[in-house]
Amino acid sequence: MRPLCGVLANIQLICRRFTVKEKFSRKRQVLLSLKIKNMQNPSFEEVLVPLRKLAKEQGNTVQKLKDTNAPAAEIQKAIQALKLTKESIAEKEQEFASNIMKVDRFKMEDLLKRRFFYDQSFAIYGGVTGLYDYGPVGCAMKANLLQIWRNHFIIEENMLEVDCSMLTPEQVLMASGHVDRFCDYMVKDVINGECFRADHLIKAHVEKVLNSKKSLETCQELTDILARLDGFSGEDIANVIKKFQIKSPTTGNNLSEPVPFNLMFGIQIGPTGLSRGFLRPETAQGIFVNFKRLLQFNQGKLPFAAAQIGNSFRNEISPRQGLIRVREFTMAEIEHFVDPSEKAHPKFHRVANERMVFFSACNQVDGNPPSCLTIGEAVRDKLVANETLGYYIARVYQFLLKVGVDPNKLRFRQHMSNEMAHYATDCWDAECYTTHGWIECVGIADRSCYDLTQHSKATGVRLVAEKRLPEPRQVEMVRCVPDKRSIWLKFKANGANIIKTLENLDKEACLHLQKQFESTGHAIVDLGDKCFELENNICKIEKYMKAEHVEEIVPSVVEPSFGIGRVLYAIFEHSFRVRDNDEQRTVRNSEFVNLKILCKFFIFSIFPFPQSWHPDALRTKNISHKVDDSSGSIGRRYARTDEIAIPFAITVDFDSLLEPHTATLRERDTMHQVRVPLSELPTVVEDLSSGKVVWSDVMKMYPVFEQQEGTVKK
Amino acid sequence: MRPLCGVLANIQLICRRFTVKEKFSRKRQVLLSLKIKNMQNPSFEEVLVPLRKLAKEQGNTVQKLKDTNAPAAEIQKAIQALKLTKESIAEKEQEFASNIMKVDRFKMEDLLKRRFFYDQSFAIYGGVTGLYDYGPVGCAMKANLLQIWRNHFIIEENMLEVDCSMLTPEQVLMASGHVDRFCDYMVKDVINGECFRADHLIKAHVEKVLNSKKSLETCQELTDILARLDGFSGEDIANVIKKFQIKSPTTGNNLSEPVPFNLMFGIQIGPTGLSRGFLRPETAQGIFVNFKRLLQFNQGKLPFAAAQIGNSFRNEISPRQGLIRVREFTMAEIEHFVDPSEKAHPKFHRVANERMVFFSACNQVDGNPPSCLTIGEAVRDKLVANETLGYYIARVYQFLLKVGVDPNKLRFRQHMSNEMAHYATDCWDAECYTTHGWIECVGIADRSCYDLTQHSKATGVRLVAEKRLPEPRQVEMVRCVPDKRSIWLKFKANGANIIKTLENLDKEACLHLQKQFESTGHAIVDLGDKCFELENNICKIEKYMKAEHVEEIVPSVVEPSFGIGRVLYAIFEHSFRVRDNDEQRTVRNSEFVNLKILCKFFIFSIFPFPQSWHPDALRTKNISHKVDDSSGSIGRRYARTDEIAIPFAITVDFDSLLEPHTATLRERDTMHQVRVPLSELPTVVEDLSSGKVVWSDVMKMYPVFEQQEGTVKK
Repeated sequence: MRPLCGVLANIQLICRRFTVKEKFSRKRQVLLSLKIKNMQNPSFEEVLVPLRKLAKEQGNTVQKLKDTNAPAAEIQKAIQALKLTKESIAEKEQEFASNIMKVDRFKMEDLLKRRFFYDQSFAIYGGVTGLYDYGPVGCAMKANLLQIWRNHFIIEENMLEVDCSMLTPEQVLMASGHVDRFCDYMVKDVINGECFRADHLIKAHVEKVLNSKKSLETCQELTDILARLDGFSGEDIANVIKKFQIKSPTTGNNLSEPVPFNLMFGIQIGPTGLSRGFLRPETAQGIFVNFKRLLQFNQGKLPFAAAQIGNSFRNEISPRQGLIRVREFTMAEIEHFVDPSEKAHPKFHRVANERMVFFSACNQVDGNPPSCLTIGEAVRDKLVANETLGYYIARVYQFLLKVGVDPNKLRFRQHMSNEMAHYATDCWDAECYTTHGWIECVGIADRSCYDLTQHSKATGVRLVAEKRLPEPRQVEMVRCVPDKRSIWLKFKANGANIIKTLENLDKEACLHLQKQFESTGHAIVDLGDKCFELENNICKIEKYMKAEHVEEIVPSVVEPSFGIGRVLYAIFEHSFRVRDNDEQRTVRNSEFVNLKILCKFFIFSIFPFPQSWHPDALRTKNISHKVDDSSGSIGRRYARTDEIAIPFAITVDFDSLLEPHTATLRERDTMHQVRVPLSELPTVVEDLSSGKVVWSDVMKMYPVFEQQEGTVKK
Repeated sequence: MRPLCGVLANIQLICRRFTVKEKFSRKRQVLLSLKIKNMQNPSFEEVLVPLRKLAKEQGNTVQKLKDTNAPAAEIQKAIQALKLTKESIAEKEQEFASNIMKVDRFKMEDLLKRRFFYDQSFAIYGGVTGLYDYGPVGCAMKANLLQIWRNHFIIEENMLEVDCSMLTPEQVLMASGHVDRFCDYMVKDVINGECFRADHLIKAHVEKVLNSKKSLETCQELTDILARLDGFSGEDIANVIKKFQIKSPTTGNNLSEPVPFNLMFGIQIGPTGLSRGFLRPETAQGIFVNFKRLLQFNQGKLPFAAAQIGNSFRNEISPRQGLIRVREFTMAEIEHFVDPSEKAHPKFHRVANERMVFFSACNQVDGNPPSCLTIGEAVRDKLVANETLGYYIARVYQFLLKVGVDPNKLRFRQHMSNEMAHYATDCWDAECYTTHGWIECVGIADRSCYDLTQHSKATGVRLVAEKRLPEPRQVEMVRCVPDKRSIWLKFKANGANIIKTLENLDKEACLHLQKQFESTGHAIVDLGDKCFELENNICKIEKYMKAEHVEEIVPSVVEPSFGIGRVLYAIFEHSFRVRDNDEQRTVRNSEFVNLKILCKFFIFSIFPFPQSWHPDALRTKNISHKVDDSSGSIGRRYARTDEIAIPFAITVDFDSLLEPHTATLRERDTMHQVRVPLSELPTVVEDLSSGKVVWSDVMKMYPVFEQQEGTVKK
């Protein structure tokens, strides 16, 4: 028996594979947590053991090549061969597991769209790819998700929340590197002009060829391309397209030369057309440019964290994955500013024992599976760069579990050096497994001092913090002492200017002057419009010591960055299920979404007899609710509320007319019902909604109501 | 003595005047509510009574001109003369009142920026006009304001909240009329290219001239221009600029011809450059294009309301009024869809007695003051078009008071026909009085069925609701019954197509066919690729009756639309004050902002001895707080928290070390302090924050702490 953690890690690897090869998403199947048990089924092992043995041998070969310092290209190819075997294992495991439980994405998306959780924007105008609108339920869930985020991070960690402009002038994004580097390579269909992301095209093409010819020999060049694709230049891309005669996948037409396409939406601010800008591609820059004000708000002290929730925009070339790849999206970003020499975190001990799956860059390169560690172990072993980064990884983990991400479909993957953003020193993605494969939901990066340094350079504003030295430091200073009388005598009217210039020379300029005097006996001073030659004896260069009490430091930044739409989508998939034993429920759709946390403020009430009881009592308690006074049966109405993930439903019926007036309160997941006096309902509902009581408490407080849902008397 | 309402109304008029003439905002003075009393000071009346008498006579003249059907231009001029007199009255009243209380806007804005409530975006890059960032306190207030809005409208009124895309395709905004009509006229400095809004320039110029020559005769042409300015065409504007030789106010250079400038930010969606779009100028359109889904979500029933909170964008030509005129702003909009024949509102009786100030279009045109009415009276007298519109006006009034708008600086002004948006049938602005004059904070419009009709036309999708008829309705139908045999015989292979075409003719086409037969004995049918001539006897046109149970209606839309930044700014001004008797407080700044409601979730704690007590207890209760462990005196720290409007402060001091451990809890407005056991503090703070207890309760529960703020022992 392999230990649970190893199996889990292996599954993580299997799942990872599906990001690479898309055919599994076409099969609409994902591995669910139950699979872990089934994966150890002996009959499956008979098939898997020989493959695993092969993989082990190939792993040894890779190690041997590395130990003998073989050429990098050879090592890469051996790794690719190993990967292919691992993918075969994954395919088999997938095959075994797929029949057990699966998420039917199309059924789920149908529900999400039919009940308007979200849907394509401007659909009556034909829609725009990559743009989505949230309807009432989706919007309530998104708002709840953000509220939980605010409590979990901003309030619990005492962060400074800001709300900055989306319209951003060009200079800001020039300094941040986005104008030059926030690009994907694009090719066009030369006949109809359709645009494609070049790397996606090549990947798809290579994988198609690889799938058709699986022998290692013929595949070596292709695997080589896959391994290097992330670092390809435009020329490399052009060569591959030419060599393999890659055509448009929709028309078969020829493709243009690849051109870099910047993903930012350009914009002109003001009427003159002279002030260029962009819609922000991330919320982070708004925090960086406000660093000085925020530091001042924090009374000049480090560390502190600022946070922002808001929309960002990326002009994706051809978005095609629903909520996963969109052109406008809500982000929640934190920038934690910390002294680069003190990255320990005072609350790290509180999270040190959180256990999660780490997929390190090394394991990815070496073809090894992810590993299951506590964050304490990960930081101790230097897998995660420092405590502050580790603390946020653990806090992200806690948050994702809190809002309903399945821990068995969550891993933290380290960026490899060729995919790391230009600024980052260490970066981990919280990835959730979905039918689209592993998708990045949160990025947690140590951006070092890149951003503040860049904005300082661009503006001349020193974005630094002052750090009190443990004891004053003696610093050598240099100044220039001009012989004023000689200067006046020699230079007359220009004397004053020369004296002023000499007195204001900085340390470096003084030393340069001294060097000139020492080697040539004279030196040249530049007064802007005119230069003057000075003799050696006309000024003195003096050195002296000065005590400094503070030093200036450029803070490092640790940034957890959440894609809210992606987290929401992962939660949808992780909580979607079809109810079993549903024969008695004759209603149209029995799928439903089990979204406990996200919906707890959204209460539904059913009123065949709206006269009997007034929902105003709920309103005054700020509890969201909806009245269903349609003519459908009670069962049909419950099904409707189940579909939109409403946790509790109230039914006022004929019995409510009897004294004492009561109504039915029903919980969605258990489908259990109790009979509650009308006068007590608002309080019970408020307490359930705020989490003060849970359903099992309510079940003890009130008599259970046994009536069948489908047969309630009318 | 004039009745209070009349005086108030008059003050409203005075204040309104300052939107027209900007010199009062330069004086940085506003009228505060206390003024009402002072305005009845007899010595003031001595000056005012003769002026009021003159105004009355001029009013009679206007009335006479109207009764005798004098030319419209003459009436307008008489009205302007009357207005001038009224403005003189206003000026005097302002003069009398201005010394009593005033808002020092520059002092206030200094505080708001210094403590980073908000500030200009990208300031380290020189800033961008019309863009602002909210810092920690401003952001918390904005979030609280939106939360109160959500409870007040979305939850209490059971609205459907949505969250739609900001990027909007051109077709959508073409249909809504924004592409063609969302423009201001712009002129450029011909030398340096600086841009100006033409109407603002003309207004400023005309007012300058008016102020210098106050005799009625010379001013008649100018007042005439002011009266008609809102309806000016480009040519009118060009003529005025030419005639009065208006130059650039900053350089004195000549100005270009006026050109219409569309205020929307253009954008290209996707990489091809073919898909044009704009950043949305309002959130409303996102709701309209989702009408069908929302109606379906509401089970097909009217009325219902949808709401959206989100950012919109307007590329203002030269924004110069702080938070009042910005290029990116948060809106909160409601679209209430209602059967146009049933605009009564079921909950109207609940608000009917709300009393507020109405400034009707008639009173504005006639130069009469606003009037003070209940909403019930306003709807009964047809001042407000219908109950639904009236209900929302009252709910907006309640909301604005709830969040801290001063009712004495709030009025509802009806749009005059020349300023009403192209779609609206009746529109009222909730205007708040500030040092910038009266500013529109909320617009409440009956948009009739304009938007849904436009989007239906543009897309061919019927955006309608079905209305059950009280009893089935007999409708005359017409159909064409072809003589199939004759057609087959005559047209052979084409027969099938002709028969199908005839059978599918709609009512109008059938009647057209009949008309052709009757006048010529034959008719032509068009099969798309070919036409055929039919004889009279080849088909019969039959009329018959059919029962219809539902009718399709295009709903009317009532739209309350909030500019969140403007509401926030009004609250800032309405609650800004400088504390009197502040000698004992030796701290730097004694101004502070009294923002009770907006800050109630934001608790501040002061810890000279952070070891003694841990603020985690607050964190777990989701209460936002901030620790001040700086070296400043207690008094200085309290001043800091007062400035950023923190309602409560906790101080742990030397006495806290004694058993039983206690700390000081201080309320901002009264500056009273009590001594609370540390163990009870979290609960007390939570209860204060949630409104479960108020400060006076706490004062009764715990011993008062008498120590002076400035002299607390350290």
